[in-house]
Amino acid sequence: MRLSQYFLPTLKENPSEAQIVSHRLMLRAGMIRQSSAGIYNWLPLGLRVLRKIEQIVREEQDLAGCQEVLMPTIQPSELWQKSGRYDDYGKEMLRITDRHGRDMLYGPTNEEAITDVVKMECQSYKDMPKMLYHIQWKFRDEVRPRFGIMRGREFLMKDSYSFDIDYESSKAAYNKMFVAYLRTFNRLGVKAIPMRADTGPIGGDLSHEFLVLADTGESGVFVHKDVLDFDIPGDDVDYNEDLQPIVDKWTSLYAATDEKHEEGVEAELGDDLLAARGIEVGHIFHFGTKYSKPMGATVTDQNGTEIDLQMGSYGIGVSRLIGAIIEASHDDDGIIWPESVAPFTVGIINLKTGDETCDETCDRLYKELNAAGVETLIDDTAERAGGKFKNMDLIGIPWHVVIGPRGLKNGVAEVKNRKSGEKQEIAITDLVAHFSK
Amino acid sequence: MRLSQYFLPTLKENPSEAQIVSHRLMLRAGMIRQSSAGIYNWLPLGLRVLRKIEQIVREEQDLAGCQEVLMPTIQPSELWQKSGRYDDYGKEMLRITDRHGRDMLYGPTNEEAITDVVKMECQSYKDMPKMLYHIQWKFRDEVRPRFGIMRGREFLMKDSYSFDIDYESSKAAYNKMFVAYLRTFNRLGVKAIPMRADTGPIGGDLSHEFLVLADTGESGVFVHKDVLDFDIPGDDVDYNEDLQPIVDKWTSLYAATDEKHEEGVEAELGDDLLAARGIEVGHIFHFGTKYSKPMGATVTDQNGTEIDLQMGSYGIGVSRLIGAIIEASHDDDGIIWPESVAPFTVGIINLKTGDETCDETCDRLYKELNAAGVETLIDDTAERAGGKFKNMDLIGIPWHVVIGPRGLKNGVAEVKNRKSGEKQEIAITDLVAHFSK
Repeated sequence: MRLSQYFLPTLKENPSEAQIVSHRLMLRAGMIRQSSAGIYNWLPLGLRVLRKIEQIVREEQDLAGCQEVLMPTIQPSELWQKSGRYDDYGKEMLRITDRHGRDMLYGPTNEEAITDVVKMECQSYKDMPKMLYHIQWKFRDEVRPRFGIMRGREFLMKDSYSFDIDYESSKAAYNKMFVAYLRTFNRLGVKAIPMRADTGPIGGDLSHEFLVLADTGESGVFVHKDVLDFDIPGDDVDYNEDLQPIVDKWTSLYAATDEKHEEGVEAELGDDLLAARGIEVGHIFHFGTKYSKPMGATVTDQNGTEIDLQMGSYGIGVSRLIGAIIEASHDDDGIIWPESVAPFTVGIINLKTGDETCDETCDRLYKELNAAGVETLIDDTAERAGGKFKNMDLIGIPWHVVIGPRGLKNGVAEVKNRKSGEKQEIAITDLVAHFSK
Repeated sequence: MRLSQYFLPTLKENPSEAQIVSHRLMLRAGMIRQSSAGIYNWLPLGLRVLRKIEQIVREEQDLAGCQEVLMPTIQPSELWQKSGRYDDYGKEMLRITDRHGRDMLYGPTNEEAITDVVKMECQSYKDMPKMLYHIQWKFRDEVRPRFGIMRGREFLMKDSYSFDIDYESSKAAYNKMFVAYLRTFNRLGVKAIPMRADTGPIGGDLSHEFLVLADTGESGVFVHKDVLDFDIPGDDVDYNEDLQPIVDKWTSLYAATDEKHEEGVEAELGDDLLAARGIEVGHIFHFGTKYSKPMGATVTDQNGTEIDLQMGSYGIGVSRLIGAIIEASHDDDGIIWPESVAPFTVGIINLKTGDETCDETCDRLYKELNAAGVETLIDDTAERAGGKFKNMDLIGIPWHVVIGPRGLKNGVAEVKNRKSGEKQEIAITDLVAHFSK
């Protein structure tokens, strides 16, 4: 993309309405703009990051054997009356009356909706197990929306649901999601730690939250420091094998949010206990027959007996993750994107726009890099060099390629790594091969 | 995907609630299930097709220089009060009151929302032109939702908006979208004809509808038969050049829906006039300052004078297109997907599940085809052969590879083309190369 044509309205000053760093930087980097309280427009740069995160989440769900569906945003109230949550959910649920006076709602989550689909389409134990997910906008009418997309009202969530005929296989589904989550967050470039969690309004008896560690995180967390070095399951992980050993390992040492933190742990663990801060980005629950029973989601077993399905649900806050990644990865100059979610991998800075050789070299590199599949942004504006550096740092592009008359004389560009700040000279002729490796 | 594990609840019988063929086939092929009136759950097969259509639409928008954003589904009423459409839109707009008593609505379209974004971020003629689009769920509270996703309430739409400083450049943006639409529908495997249109509630003075020709279409259309043979702009089309000649060519001959059909044309054109039926899938409008003026979306020109932006909007019914494609491409046995939007390219039918050589060959082929990037579905169920053929025809997979003991003795598979019905024998060893060409 050519910056001169890109719709990227960056801000030099910190907007006064933003209290936390991710909100500030998303506004300053031209990623989002508020539409109304807790509801945002995603501008091109923000949307690119959102789609990358979404795609990594999707790939890992698919790998775990979860199948993608898409449920609508607007749900009929009847489903929630059946489960008993219509009244329980309170004012956080956005309730709507349609033109025929029918009570509808904007889905804050989808346990009822997916249970209804499975109930209608699956009658036999032969149709089980099922793991289904969707990535869809949700709405929760927060009393006081704040912190940008971190606690917004309209947000993008991946929610998966498992259906099984008994506890053992439902536990296996839970373990698959546990492992998929470890892999997902790792690919997104953040350190996320599973912690035992309250089950809250969704209910159930087995539950873990995944929290991204970030100095500016919303919650205090206490983690045995060895957990930080546990291995992430690799590409060779076999989801058809027993994953219990992986889950056991990851839950073998202490890890808790301050809400669940137990007295005496400090004394017991001493220096092994790390007190840090974290941001919740995922939550997994096993809740048995909590929804299948009231909604009549049963299948017949081998003997023709009706059995209530065992269920679990598994959420990842896709839009929230952008905030969490920024909280975990930024400096005074701006965002530092992990390469896997960066909107562009390379940013070309033309030090002397108007200089024929500079312009020509930049333009050729820009085309060649993109043709080689390296997503590249070129700052072809007439802004002065200092402003271009600041801007590229602010929006967090992982690699900056600086082209100027002096380097060109020697046939080299300066390549800067945004994260480490390290700079090296690379021959112009080697650049495409360097980045498309 | 292995059919034995796929969530694909097909139906043998025609569902009584479905009045038109696309609705019937989408239900029978397990693509969608109704959630409430005019609101659907997308099951895995349907979602795959939806995503393919969305991606082709996206690629063609990007190629035309349009930049993707994403606006939220829930909008504040204030925007619509400014434009004057809040009252005009009537009961089709889903109106919502949030917990603080603020009037909101589920966006039926986004002229106001995008105009507000551009007004806030663009102040100078130097920020122009801008072409922005998003692909987002919309809601229109139809009195009587019907015909499945063809006239649903919650639907997926691509809507683009152009902003220019004068009529001439606004017309150029209009032409870009005109050309992008010709290319988009062609890539989707349907014949879509641009026809002069009423501008309806969006307003404006220049407008074309694009209608897919289908015998079972909702509207009567009258088209000069030579229009059907006009060339589609190729991959070498240059969106920076003047596209007026292409638009002039495509609008040079008679094409009108029955609403706009003029008396006397039959007599004038005789055998050159084709009376057919069509389905509206796209609509483009130029409407000048209709929104920019009341909403104050101005920029300053070179002399510092404030000028109202010239605007256009350009819609494609992404979910509706699935219905239109099926209406245009099916037979008595089921759907016939154009390859570009088919959920899978190849369907492997194992004639004798349980036979070791058949199972082994099918499994190997399935893995090799997917590894070669050929999206393949394998019917590895214990269903009898007749049922497997029927099912593969129903869901419309373009190529069926039939593996049975008899063929295997000669080292061949039978390959059937779903559209033509033609069958040929191909050596098993050549199959992967054949499809990954």
